[in-house]
Amino acid sequence: MNAPSVPPPPSAPEGPRLRICDVGLRDGLQNEKTPVGTADKIRLGEALIAAGMRELEITSFVNPNAVPQMADAEAVAAASRSWRDQGVRRTALVINEKGYARARESGIDGIVVVAVISETLGKRNSNMGVADAIATTRRIINAAKRDDLFVRACLAPAWVCPFEGEVPESRVFGAAEAVLAEAPDELVVADTIGHADPRAVRDRCRRLLQMAGLGRLVVHLHDTQALGAANAYAAMEAGATAFDASIGGLGGCPFAPGAAGNLATEDLVFLAAKLGLVTGIDLDRLWDAVALAGQLVGRTVGGRTRTYREASKAREERSS
Amino acid sequence: MNAPSVPPPPSAPEGPRLRICDVGLRDGLQNEKTPVGTADKIRLGEALIAAGMRELEITSFVNPNAVPQMADAEAVAAASRSWRDQGVRRTALVINEKGYARARESGIDGIVVVAVISETLGKRNSNMGVADAIATTRRIINAAKRDDLFVRACLAPAWVCPFEGEVPESRVFGAAEAVLAEAPDELVVADTIGHADPRAVRDRCRRLLQMAGLGRLVVHLHDTQALGAANAYAAMEAGATAFDASIGGLGGCPFAPGAAGNLATEDLVFLAAKLGLVTGIDLDRLWDAVALAGQLVGRTVGGRTRTYREASKAREERSS
Repeated sequence: MNAPSVPPPPSAPEGPRLRICDVGLRDGLQNEKTPVGTADKIRLGEALIAAGMRELEITSFVNPNAVPQMADAEAVAAASRSWRDQGVRRTALVINEKGYARARESGIDGIVVVAVISETLGKRNSNMGVADAIATTRRIINAAKRDDLFVRACLAPAWVCPFEGEVPESRVFGAAEAVLAEAPDELVVADTIGHADPRAVRDRCRRLLQMAGLGRLVVHLHDTQALGAANAYAAMEAGATAFDASIGGLGGCPFAPGAAGNLATEDLVFLAAKLGLVTGIDLDRLWDAVALAGQLVGRTVGGRTRTYREASKAREERSS
Repeated sequence: MNAPSVPPPPSAPEGPRLRICDVGLRDGLQNEKTPVGTADKIRLGEALIAAGMRELEITSFVNPNAVPQMADAEAVAAASRSWRDQGVRRTALVINEKGYARARESGIDGIVVVAVISETLGKRNSNMGVADAIATTRRIINAAKRDDLFVRACLAPAWVCPFEGEVPESRVFGAAEAVLAEAPDELVVADTIGHADPRAVRDRCRRLLQMAGLGRLVVHLHDTQALGAANAYAAMEAGATAFDASIGGLGGCPFAPGAAGNLATEDLVFLAAKLGLVTGIDLDRLWDAVALAGQLVGRTVGGRTRTYREASKAREERSS
């Protein structure tokens, strides 16, 4: 005789899962002009963890002169060490071996190593051509695996380059094959400037999922052209189950709100809920983190679902 | 020997087409508190036609006490008669036989007859239950065909009812079967309150396209939850090639911008362009119509692509 089955607790509903890594502390803040101190970054990370977030890209080990907002990378890594005990995986971005050496020393849980696969953008961004970037990425994946770090290998831009236009499919798939040969834990593909369209997202994700394996592809979207949700849905339809997103849609130009930010975490969690996908993230608590993010950067932030949320809240208050 | 093939003019590129009917003059304005006069409605229609729009829902023949903004339905129909010569099809909404009689007399080109397929909403909106609404719709389709009018039969809400929640699939498909038995020119399905999710849009559109025939299904979306573009893409993926949309996203509550408006025509045209679909609509001229719509309702309007457009324009100006 079996004991009656126990229903799962309400905080962990069953169903197909969608994994989300919040990259607000890195991709979001790096574009913000207002300096945000280490302690405030930690507060924001803790607000995200309180909402249920378990994957966080917390900083990048890059040239502090180029990205002043990330100059405290070591301090952020040190101050967040206890998050591991809560089951959180903290990653940090690196683009070269110097950055990797710093990341390894910092006590981070994993890295995101980015190969820029546009010649023009690579030369401007990291002074590396595509072949060089891929070779560097392969070496860093190898080193990180030896050092027992979690490794995400990221290809950027995987759809459209701001200088060269469409990134040829063949280059994306070729680069994916090259980095996957080193067996990173995950392959991340980035729509760096948010110019991808849903069909291209669908088509490239389908093929990349075949290459990387289901569950190992991470899609990193921006919402520049207001197609973030459509592109996320297209990736899900192709089979993607893991995404990057940024709390509050941080990453936008402060002078043109919504113009260039990442897909907002709250918009992605909302979409997942609409589709019956389980993220483990509490939307009310997530909006507390949005509010904190807004305080830290000194302006109202929040994804495209903000207006709907505010209208719903106002209606609830009127009827209570 | 064949003559060399002549390339199409740039204004009529080849490619798969997407048809759009602008419903701003009806669904948009009916929710606006600021009264808009007949002459201004005609100006807005002409701005849309100048942008390339060839299908317009221009008014509704309903109780003027319930919808004061539509009290000039006959005048709008009369003043727009010359649009026919420009290849424009003007339709007007009706929900009962009294409205149909007015529409027929008005010299309109076609009608949109709406069957409300939620008991609660039907009782509140048109004092008709579902069975009654479907029977009425069938009679009106028949009458309009005899009168040689173009007929769109619309089911609303086809996904979510504000009072009853999800509208069962079986009711939508059953109602579709009933109205399609009268052979309307098109079947319109409406996400009346903008609460549909992309998978439900995909699934219902797939089946409805099988029932109505490719090219005869029209998808009418609202952008309440910032899922308008994702839902439109999902419908396109299912095979839908015709949509309703509203210039400037008109139809939102003036006190919660973006909260409840229709999918904005400019957002849909932008998405179509990204996907290589030909709409025949010039986006720059469409934004002139958006600006006019904003003047008429006395506030800034415009879809979710507004910020991107403004940022792009600012960049162009700086670099010129």
